[in-house]
Amino acid sequence: MSRYPAPEIQDLPDDIRAKVLEVQEKAGFVPHVFLALARRPAEWRAFFAYHDALMTPETVGRESGLTKGEREMIVTTTSAANHCLYCVVAHGAILRIYEKKPLVADQVAINHRKADISARQKAMLDFAMKVCLKSHEVEDADFAVLHAHGFNDEDIWDIAAITAFFGLSNRMASFSNMMPNPEFYVMGRVPKEKK
Amino acid sequence: MSRYPAPEIQDLPDDIRAKVLEVQEKAGFVPHVFLALARRPAEWRAFFAYHDALMTPETVGRESGLTKGEREMIVTTTSAANHCLYCVVAHGAILRIYEKKPLVADQVAINHRKADISARQKAMLDFAMKVCLKSHEVEDADFAVLHAHGFNDEDIWDIAAITAFFGLSNRMASFSNMMPNPEFYVMGRVPKEKK
Amino acid sequence: MSRYPAPEIQDLPDDIRAKVLEVQEKAGFVPHVFLALARRPAEWRAFFAYHDALMTPETVGRESGLTKGEREMIVTTTSAANHCLYCVVAHGAILRIYEKKPLVADQVAINHRKADISARQKAMLDFAMKVCLKSHEVEDADFAVLHAHGFNDEDIWDIAAITAFFGLSNRMASFSNMMPNPEFYVMGRVPKEKK
Amino acid sequence: MSRYPAPEIQDLPDDIRAKVLEVQEKAGFVPHVFLALARRPAEWRAFFAYHDALMTPETVGRESGLTKGEREMIVTTTSAANHCLYCVVAHGAILRIYEKKPLVADQVAINHRKADISARQKAMLDFAMKVCLKSHEVEDADFAVLHAHGFNDEDIWDIAAITAFFGLSNRMASFSNMMPNPEFYVMGRVPKEKK
Amino acid sequence: MSRYPAPEIQDLPDDIRAKVLEVQEKAGFVPHVFLALARRPAEWRAFFAYHDALMTPETVGRESGLTKGEREMIVTTTSAANHCLYCVVAHGAILRIYEKKPLVADQVAINHRKADISARQKAMLDFAMKVCLKSHEVEDADFAVLHAHGFNDEDIWDIAAITAFFGLSNRMASFSNMMPNPEFYVMGRVPKEKK
Amino acid sequence: MSRYPAPEIQDLPDDIRAKVLEVQEKAGFVPHVFLALARRPAEWRAFFAYHDALMTPETVGRESGLTKGEREMIVTTTSAANHCLYCVVAHGAILRIYEKKPLVADQVAINHRKADISARQKAMLDFAMKVCLKSHEVEDADFAVLHAHGFNDEDIWDIAAITAFFGLSNRMASFSNMMPNPEFYVMGRVPKEKK
Repeated sequence: MSRYPAPEIQDLPDDIRAKVLEVQEKAGFVPHVFLALARRPAEWRAFFAYHDALMTPETVGRESGLTKGEREMIVTTTSAANHCLYCVVAHGAILRIYEKKPLVADQVAINHRKADISARQKAMLDFAMKVCLKSHEVEDADFAVLHAHGFNDEDIWDIAAITAFFGLSNRMASFSNMMPNPEFYVMGRVPKEKK
Repeated sequence: MSRYPAPEIQDLPDDIRAKVLEVQEKAGFVPHVFLALARRPAEWRAFFAYHDALMTPETVGRESGLTKGEREMIVTTTSAANHCLYCVVAHGAILRIYEKKPLVADQVAINHRKADISARQKAMLDFAMKVCLKSHEVEDADFAVLHAHGFNDEDIWDIAAITAFFGLSNRMASFSNMMPNPEFYVMGRVPKEKK
Repeated sequence: MSRYPAPEIQDLPDDIRAKVLEVQEKAGFVPHVFLALARRPAEWRAFFAYHDALMTPETVGRESGLTKGEREMIVTTTSAANHCLYCVVAHGAILRIYEKKPLVADQVAINHRKADISARQKAMLDFAMKVCLKSHEVEDADFAVLHAHGFNDEDIWDIAAITAFFGLSNRMASFSNMMPNPEFYVMGRVPKEKK
Repeated sequence: MSRYPAPEIQDLPDDIRAKVLEVQEKAGFVPHVFLALARRPAEWRAFFAYHDALMTPETVGRESGLTKGEREMIVTTTSAANHCLYCVVAHGAILRIYEKKPLVADQVAINHRKADISARQKAMLDFAMKVCLKSHEVEDADFAVLHAHGFNDEDIWDIAAITAFFGLSNRMASFSNMMPNPEFYVMGRVPKEKK
Repeated sequence: MSRYPAPEIQDLPDDIRAKVLEVQEKAGFVPHVFLALARRPAEWRAFFAYHDALMTPETVGRESGLTKGEREMIVTTTSAANHCLYCVVAHGAILRIYEKKPLVADQVAINHRKADISARQKAMLDFAMKVCLKSHEVEDADFAVLHAHGFNDEDIWDIAAITAFFGLSNRMASFSNMMPNPEFYVMGRVPKEKK
Repeated sequence: MSRYPAPEIQDLPDDIRAKVLEVQEKAGFVPHVFLALARRPAEWRAFFAYHDALMTPETVGRESGLTKGEREMIVTTTSAANHCLYCVVAHGAILRIYEKKPLVADQVAINHRKADISARQKAMLDFAMKVCLKSHEVEDADFAVLHAHGFNDEDIWDIAAITAFFGLSNRMASFSNMMPNPEFYVMGRVPKEKK
């Protein structure tokens, strides 16, 4: 699952084990990142606290001008620029589900300019890619472009912060050879059968 | 101080204000990052929890095979590769103080290959730069080089995680135009006078 | 389907229409490339003659030391390096089917170094990437590495020629905004039900 | 002449030998590419069919909005970007002859921005270089620039397709170490003496 | 001090020794470059003649539209792009002194876009960086931008020539491992005490 | 001839005019660089003093372990990497003449790895390219490779200094749009007729 051995669920600290079991209950499996990082509990806690503050802002009492799908779009696109297998596959799956668009994850991962998304979303991803690849060149003109597409400064903080956080995640996953769970590859690709 | 207005100290949540005042007491001033990120308390808490887990491992009950100075060396070197003004200046200052070497921060920021550091430290920085710039190419051979210099796998995790975390920090500082406090530029450059 | 209007099937020259109908019969749909390029019949004929000479060598009386799956692996990997949406999606589908490995296409597209393939196949893809990105630096040492993995000079010609041909294909698809058929995205991801 | 042994003329299939002799008759020598690729007749036939469809469109019943010289200008410029010795030397020669400008080939190969060509031709080469180096970034704005210089969509297809085809040719020549015939280096550099 | 042994002062040719002693008298120490290059007197003389013609134009009877501080700003910024330890440290010191701004050298070396300098100076540095990194792409539009900021063609020559000359200097210093004198690191960082 | 007007020969300072007339006498024409730089006499004198110290070391009482042809090979190869039209064309001509090899200049300019030169010369050019493109990465191992090919440290200084000096020259020529004299393009390409 990765270069570093992951702890067993039963050996985890209580708070971490609780979260892991909750995710397992919800998803049907435990995404590897939850176990792979758990070998260092303090880092695990900070990682997921940061993740939740950005990706589920409602859990910290904040609203975001980005949709859940847009947030995953940023993750998938910039993780592909960083060639991070784990994040592209795992977040691509979540993106497909949130957007109910089975093709969009592959599109943004390969070339977001060709994706079947709005012009506003392309501008969002252009900015995310700039933060990902050459953040030191971000300038007022970049903000102006995003404002013209209806993003406010808090939305722009969200785009940048999600890109920055997953840049961290990408490097941790790639350096440690974290492999995505097989389940992610196919999630959201075929419509669920109605019962 | 940055593109986004920072909150006033008196308006901060109690836990954050306490930490800010503690830092101010110790350093004599409040490093801008403590206020700049505080406009989003949940992200602030995650950021500093992560920071402390990596940079002061003893506070989370962990020992690190890297010295305090080596950790700052990694920050300064990779932040320079990301052209992050805030982190190079602030962590360069801390690096000079920890290492008691007034020249080392400028050396690693400009070209770590020419710095007056050990061969082991150069190998450490070579790996940090690889994680910083092309983490997807990390391979077994990189681990072997580090093992040969006496780093074990936990040390290597430290190098990678510090690089990854400050890659996040670099992007946040650059995108938001966070400026380093003037105090940092000169800290550790001249020997303190004895009393 | 692309920036340039595609001809209708009934308007195609006989030989091209016959091939298109044959493919439609076999695949259940007409891959867009067959129609998109048909607006220029002479180029269409050369393109598919070249394609078949490399990808189905048995049709021109030649055997290849590469398996069908390995040939598609080269296409998928190098097309991802060129950010070609059409070729990654279409040939990724064929790769999954030939290799009977539902995960392999996403793996090689994102980072072939992490893919679940043999060391021999990784060496093959390393060389393909070199031909794709900096062919002028190919040197004797590259041949030696491949020889050590059991590839002979004809196999190496195959790797290079497939890379070169799909570099052409990638540029045509990207410049003309050719979009992959939706069918490709999910092909080979879930095992076919037995009847 | 190249890393792979070339067949003797007398051993070639009839159609290929006929073409080779025709070229030899016309040029006074056999350009190496005709023999180097002939070791795989099916690929040879596809290669030259593609070449002729793009470079001598009148032979397939098509007219092009690009002049013969402009087509060679594209080949020379993009082959230099790919550092392909064979194609820069061979097509630089043809470019000099078609354009009757002894200096133009060296100029576009070294820096097309400084070449003694029209603004329209510089725009054509800017686009060719974009297709050559980052085709995934081609966008509507690129078409608009070319339209403003009088190129229509068929001309733009020509520019892209010639670039794409010679990208294939460059990679084949470089990987196989195909060397240009000495005759090419000096062709078109000095005015032919009148008889 | 460098990979190549430097001559002793007393062994220098008279003209070189005179200049070295003059610099020593003025600065309080001999900057390493004066000795490191002196092992080849003819190159030493050409180097410093060129240096003075650009950096102290009044000594050759010329006025420059750039201030002394601006000239050092160009050196510090482009030397950082070339990762030249010697030139960033030595000329950063002179820049701080001329501009009486203790922070500016670190700012332009790390990211000139964030430096506390005028818009005119940022445009000057943008152009210097273009000459440093991709001089072949300099075009009329670059001159127009500089003209709009009040630079004339002689000023632009100055910017380009200083960049070009220190590009030479950077390469000589880096290849030969020339180390900056320790004195430079702290010069201009703290206000001189009044007597 | 360039973006900046060049002075007339009769208006030049005596020493510069004398050198210009000497060159004209010898070459049959005045290479543009001699006039283009003469608008600033002090820079002209430093430039040609530096040039002669490196390219005709015998004029400053020094011997070089590099042949005249090898020195021009370095100039042509690195100037091509910098896309400098003037220097590739002018020094390519001189290279052909010195080496009596009409093909070598085009070969090293397009891809020195494929040039018909010795292994020792390829190692020399590999090092020159490293100094040209990433001088900050030069390390002991580079010296060891050159030593193994018989170069001593003075020869290595020559390779680096020639590369560095022509990096200056390339930037001056490109930024100022200096165009090579037409005579250079064909010099040394055809054997001189015997009388």
